[in-house]
Amino acid sequence: MAKPLEALLRALQSLPGVGAKSASRMAFHLLQHDRAGALELARALTRGLAELRHCSRCFTFTDAELCATCADPQRDDSLLCVLETPADQAALERTGVYRGRYFVLMGKLGPLAAPGPQDNGLQRLMERLHSPEASAVRELVLATSFTAEGEATAHLIAQALKGREIKVTRLARGVPLGSELEYVDLGTIAHALADRR
Amino acid sequence: MAKPLEALLRALQSLPGVGAKSASRMAFHLLQHDRAGALELARALTRGLAELRHCSRCFTFTDAELCATCADPQRDDSLLCVLETPADQAALERTGVYRGRYFVLMGKLGPLAAPGPQDNGLQRLMERLHSPEASAVRELVLATSFTAEGEATAHLIAQALKGREIKVTRLARGVPLGSELEYVDLGTIAHALADRR
Repeated sequence: MAKPLEALLRALQSLPGVGAKSASRMAFHLLQHDRAGALELARALTRGLAELRHCSRCFTFTDAELCATCADPQRDDSLLCVLETPADQAALERTGVYRGRYFVLMGKLGPLAAPGPQDNGLQRLMERLHSPEASAVRELVLATSFTAEGEATAHLIAQALKGREIKVTRLARGVPLGSELEYVDLGTIAHALADRR
Repeated sequence: MAKPLEALLRALQSLPGVGAKSASRMAFHLLQHDRAGALELARALTRGLAELRHCSRCFTFTDAELCATCADPQRDDSLLCVLETPADQAALERTGVYRGRYFVLMGKLGPLAAPGPQDNGLQRLMERLHSPEASAVRELVLATSFTAEGEATAHLIAQALKGREIKVTRLARGVPLGSELEYVDLGTIAHALADRR
């Protein structure tokens, strides 16, 4: 096989969830049917690497010192929502109902994750809460995943904030909209029953 | 969302099988955990686009006028294997048992595919068979997929070669190695029974 093709197949496999077969399908699709798309992807990767960095306040990805949300004077400074990833943040933003600030952990905390010294989301969160621009925060909304790791992360953060005058809340657990009870897992139904209103 | 991030998410979705969620997982993985991989991918795409083209003889992807297989004087000129994609060719090469030449259709023929004038694999195959370097071909091995489209492609090629002194064969249909009969589809078992040896 030609060297550049081998290199392309190998590089595509560095994408999460892409194995040898997907990589080969992707490479041949791009080369045969979508060279413009391939060029666009190469450019977007190069530009993304050069321009995207972490927002100095909330740590989401941005191309400026502060991301658009942190720089927006209209957002509610008393609410701070803690999430795991910029993808989670984008999902919450799409709902259009949250008008507070964000803090993105960029991963999970706790024993299952192994963060390096620079990669410690909890420590960065504490620093954020001690900073002058966080003095208005009255409520921390923990919006980490409802998985074992996400729950552990939420628990660690709640522990670390004990004794401080910040209310700590968690997104409600319950039955997703559009679900028939029959197909919802038992743990979710139990939570929805306990938190009924 | 930052413009370069939006562009990256959009570009990743031009990959086959990648929707909004996979694109977001890929982008954040690359930006957060594998910037070297992202750079490598950008380079491999750029290099692949610049250097990879179709082999002038067999139409697979190569970085030279002739691909390594076509240029190899050790291969058997009397055998020509017709495949749909370079991925199929790579699979056959990996078996190590085929020593003939190849012709890659770069797609399927027939009513289900809609090839443009420059994209007509059958016409290119006929031109290849009329060329001086194909005068030694005695057998055409049809290795198109065993799907409706692949069978139609094989049928079209066999039809077009009627009356020519070239033996046309097809890869054997049968039970895959390692299969238990119970789990093999009935059509395959029927073929395996008919072609028993």
